[in-house]
Amino acid sequence: MFRLIHIAIDEARRGMQNNHGGPFGAVIVKDGEIIATAHNEVLSSKDPTAHAEILAIRRASQELKQFDLSDCEIYTTSQPCPMCLAAICWAGIKRIHYGTTTEEVASIGFNDSNIYRILKGEQPSEIEFMTIEREACQELLKEWENKPDKQMY
Amino acid sequence: MFRLIHIAIDEARRGMQNNHGGPFGAVIVKDGEIIATAHNEVLSSKDPTAHAEILAIRRASQELKQFDLSDCEIYTTSQPCPMCLAAICWAGIKRIHYGTTTEEVASIGFNDSNIYRILKGEQPSEIEFMTIEREACQELLKEWENKPDKQMY
Repeated sequence: MFRLIHIAIDEARRGMQNNHGGPFGAVIVKDGEIIATAHNEVLSSKDPTAHAEILAIRRASQELKQFDLSDCEIYTTSQPCPMCLAAICWAGIKRIHYGTTTEEVASIGFNDSNIYRILKGEQPSEIEFMTIEREACQELLKEWENKPDKQMY
Repeated sequence: MFRLIHIAIDEARRGMQNNHGGPFGAVIVKDGEIIATAHNEVLSSKDPTAHAEILAIRRASQELKQFDLSDCEIYTTSQPCPMCLAAICWAGIKRIHYGTTTEEVASIGFNDSNIYRILKGEQPSEIEFMTIEREACQELLKEWENKPDKQMY
């Protein structure tokens, strides 16, 4: 649906022009109806997680009053970064329409190849991982398992 | 710092007991001082991105009024999922202290192995990726490149 990606493009442009963040926009749609739109707000909100797709998912879940967006599709001006792609997975969204590729986005300075390297566990990583209080944390998982009224999701 | 992981554990337990979400908590620290705490709120907020680490990052960035948390460390009761790990990367956090592993978390039903598979581009994927309006989206990236007052981040 060309109309929908152009709404994402307009969002991206507005956000960029207002210095809210990078040139990225997203739209979430259900049965052809727009549920949420967003643009990158990392700079204006000072929140490193405020990517267009994350904000669109948060708004769509608030609009639909459910965390399961498996009947939705996302239109995003660029291929999602690993954070946003994983968020799309957790939301259950099954179809991603995107314009520019990871490589094209990297060429203007938004490079997530390092994050992919860290996600793959490749060394050397800039991030230090250290375990702590393993037993006390394992106890939490057991409490969840034994919780009679737990809601799986 | 055992005190800090136990604050994350207490957060996780409180969230679980109040049915806010799974048994996960996180604390963000700067120079030994607690900047933000959070527990998983996927169920209560109906937001699929409301993992403990994401909420802690959002709160810490609001508290410090900056998206760069590179002078912070995170204590989290479980190894971060790919969404949260990528968010930690974007935030610039360099040290992760965690209790239970990805495998232990998967054993109580929170399995992110499928997400890792999708992030690696392994087939078959449940998610359909489709390109659309590539040129119009490439134009956005060019506009960003040519924007005289852009702030890189």
